[in-house]
Formats: sequence, structure tokens, C-alpha cells
Amino acid sequence: MSHHNSNGGLPSSSELPALSLSILNVEPLDEFIREVADFIHHMISQRPKDLEGSVEVEAKVGLLVDKHTGMRLQLPVLTETILAPNSIECRFESNMSAQQHKHYNKLLNRLLEESSSKIGYGHLYLKDTFYDSGGRGGEKVRVTKDEKTNSVLACTRKIRLGDLNIYSPKRPADWRISVNFEVPVPHPTGTSTHTRRKDRISYTHEEFAIDLTQVSTSNSPSQSTLSHELEIEISRPEYLVDAAYARDGSGSEEGAAYDELIRAFVNNARIMVRNADGGEGAWG
Amino acid sequence: MSHHNSNGGLPSSSELPALSLSILNVEPLDEFIREVADFIHHMISQRPKDLEGSVEVEAKVGLLVDKHTGMRLQLPVLTETILAPNSIECRFESNMSAQQHKHYNKLLNRLLEESSSKIGYGHLYLKDTFYDSGGRGGEKVRVTKDEKTNSVLACTRKIRLGDLNIYSPKRPADWRISVNFEVPVPHPTGTSTHTRRKDRISYTHEEFAIDLTQVSTSNSPSQSTLSHELEIEISRPEYLVDAAYARDGSGSEEGAAYDELIRAFVNNARIMVRNADGGEGAWG
Repeated sequence: MSHHNSNGGLPSSSELPALSLSILNVEPLDEFIREVADFIHHMISQRPKDLEGSVEVEAKVGLLVDKHTGMRLQLPVLTETILAPNSIECRFESNMSAQQHKHYNKLLNRLLEESSSKIGYGHLYLKDTFYDSGGRGGEKVRVTKDEKTNSVLACTRKIRLGDLNIYSPKRPADWRISVNFEVPVPHPTGTSTHTRRKDRISYTHEEFAIDLTQVSTSNSPSQSTLSHELEIEISRPEYLVDAAYARDGSGSEEGAAYDELIRAFVNNARIMVRNADGGEGAWG
Repeated sequence: MSHHNSNGGLPSSSELPALSLSILNVEPLDEFIREVADFIHHMISQRPKDLEGSVEVEAKVGLLVDKHTGMRLQLPVLTETILAPNSIECRFESNMSAQQHKHYNKLLNRLLEESSSKIGYGHLYLKDTFYDSGGRGGEKVRVTKDEKTNSVLACTRKIRLGDLNIYSPKRPADWRISVNFEVPVPHPTGTSTHTRRKDRISYTHEEFAIDLTQVSTSNSPSQSTLSHELEIEISRPEYLVDAAYARDGSGSEEGAAYDELIRAFVNNARIMVRNADGGEGAWG
């Protein structure tokens, strides 16, 4: 046996044999990304067909909290995995520390300054007011106003289609993928249940919006709670849905567009989760 | 909103914008492969330094069995993940059905016939006889003979360094990565405890051996049990160890060799696990 300090084992860099990716010369399919793609595809196919609306797909960074302990969920696994739906009593908290929020802000601003990265930027001040919709499932109607102009941007009923929770034991954050169906509705009447004021920085890149938001939620005029949210959203619902349908006629280049879209979506979410440490460093 | 049958959402293939892999234009690090690489690296550093021997790294395809139920382990997750060591009461059974074994044999033979794939092939008939070593940890000494020539190929004391169990809920098989330290020893005296006769087809590809083995284990002359095993082994322990040490002086091309080796090792194991369905089809 040769040792690490002998010259027997390791060729110098110029002699290194190029190693194939595998015995089949390809990377095996990423089953995590495939699971996410199949899930979103299924949710799209399950959306209400009798309503005009759009499919909203977003990944939120936060924590999975065990309902029994009130602490972050702990499972006996070492690497990121998707939880089986309805199998574990936990809730997802779409929140992070102010320090983490600031860290993301710095990282994303740095990316913005690099001209090559083609990132768009917008700073929005929004106020969401919620009303009972009286519809099935107890959904709320959300009225979104631009705080600066006080103009109504949208009145929407949001119908939850499904969620996937992703447990990420190596990182300081977990994440959730949510698929909702958003239906435009007339401005509601009656009394609102609560409001959410949002100070949002929205970074856009190709088909995605990365929204870093400070949210102040008020249930009464005298009480409000502050939270910090990070969401990655697929920007064009109609493109997503068309790509998902094109996937069914598989084998075509159009069919590959859906899987490429979901791959980039998952990659972006993972990059965000892996940079949730709130440190001062560069992208990890 | 445009619909899937409109022309609004999805450009034709010639117009498709090339989507970046992520906001950083790279794939995020595969944390599963990184975890395996760090684990094997740590095991290598923990090997006995006072003994001459070689580090054996292998992935075995089989089933994780819950010790309480006697059935395959079930966890509330949807995708492949590494179990935290000593957290779950389960054992790993390195076994499969004769049908699965035959299926792998067909798939690997087909690959062998494709001239471009550069696969080596050997058919070995081996007999392992085990003796108590009297050493620490109750290890056995294994004497391996070529059944055809009856010549002794090796006398080895195998010291277990560590295992990682990989739960694979989407597949009909789980897998385990084992790291052992094999020390050559003199031929033992005394009475053997048991024998294992191996009918092994060994496929080699670059730095790996894929061993498909039918094993007959005998504790007494009148009793034997048959099992079917599939193992992927890193062929050159000295190359592995040298590459692992070169990784420590990070940044160099030599340092990348270790991670490339482990990536191909994991890819090969995953490809095997994903083809454990025993069907008649091609590589999945």
C-alpha cells in the first residue's frame, strides 16, 4: 500500500484521468427536483377549472416548528428531505431574524451591483387588508394597496392548492413550497379582519422574483407584530402553466422548459436557505 | 391570463430563453454528496495509524429493516436522505431477490456489450472462511480462497470504521456506505466459525468495481442460506487515501480529485438503487 506522502497513488494534475460522472456517463436524475416538479405539476392540474385566476408558486424560507415542543422540528436525518404531507404535526413559520434579513439584503444588493448578473430591483410599500370571503375553505379576500399612492393594486381571493415542507437539518432554516390559485374578485364590503403592511425589496432574475419583506401585522389599531420574510416566486404564472402542459407531450424541447424552470426555482431556494446563517461573508 | 392552448405563454423552441441555473449562475452544492465525502474523509483520518492496511469503501444495495417491526424502515419523508448515526433502531440487510439480481446482471451485461462503455468483467468463485481473531472489537479473520485453484488469495482482519445508512423511500431498495480498514494477517489456526461461498461477477469501470454476488453462508455442513448482494467498491484504496489527503491542501486540482471520485461513487450507487425494480426494462 502506498501512503499519501508517496508518489504511488495520486498522479499529478497533468496526468489525472478524467473521471466519468458514472458508469452510464450521466448524472442520475435529481429525485428531489423531480419530486418538486411532479408535485407542482399535479397542483396545477388540480386547480379550479371553473374560475379565472392564476397559479402562484412560491418558496418561503423559515422554520418548521414541532407543534408538541414548540421548537424547531428535529428528525433523525442528516440531509435535506421533503416531508410526507400530513405525516408530522408541525407548522411552518415564514420568519427570520432581523440580522438574517439584513444579511440577505447585503448579499442580494452585492449581486445587483455586479452588472453581469442582470438583476432587477424594486422597493415597494404595500398594505394588504383582509376580509372574510364567505367562500369555501374560509379563504380571505386580500385587498392590496400601494401605500404611497393609496391606489388599489389588486383584490384577490387566494385558494390554497398545496404545500411541500422541506426539512433542512444542515442549515439554520427550513423551507416550504406553496402553490395557490389566486382569483381576482370585486372589492369586498364589510369590516376587515386584519392588515399587513409590507416594506418589500423585490429582486427579479429571469423567471423569478426574490422578495425580501418586512411585515407588520395588525389585528387591532394598538397591536402589531413584526416579521421578516423571504420568498422566491415564479414570476409568470401563465408561462409556468403553459410549460407544465407542454411537459405532457414529453420529449419535445418545450417539454424540457418546465423541468428547467423548476430546477432553477429549487436551485434559487436552496441558495437562499444555505445563506441563512446571517454572517458577514459572501455567498456560501 | 393566457391558457395552455393560447400562444401567449410559451415561446416556440427556437425562441426559448436560455434559463440560468440559478441567480448565481451555478448549481448549489449537492449537500448529500458533500456529506458522504466529509464522512469518508473523516473515517480515513480515523483509521489505525499503527497498522499496515488499506481503506475499503463500499456501497451496498439492500434494505433498512426496523428492529421493532421486522419490516422495511418507514420514515415520514419523500426523498432519499442519510440517517443520523445511532438514531434509529434498524439493521441493514445486504440482500435482494433472485429476480432483482438477474435484472442487474442483464443491465450490466448489456452495458458490457456496448464497446464504448469500457467496462471490465470477471467471474470469480471464492470461498471465505472466518476465524475469531481474538482482537479488539471481536473482529473475524477472513481467509479468501479461489475455489478453482484452492489457492489462498488473502488473509485479512477487517476493522469496521463506520457506516452511513441511506433511506430511499422512492425506490425498492435502500443503501449503506461502509468504510473498513483491512489488515493483512498470517493464516489463522484453530477452528473456523463459518464459511461464505461466493459466485461473483465483477464489473469494473474506471475507479470502481461493481460486484454482483450470490452468497451461500454455512454455519454447519448441513445448513446454508443463500443471499444476493450488490456492492460498489472504490477499487484503489491508495488512490482514495492520497486523494483525500490532497483535498486538505484545498484549491488545487489534486484536491478536486477526491470530490470527483466520491461524486462518481455516489452517482453509481444511486443508479444501482434506482434500477432495483427487477423489471425487464432498460436503465432507469
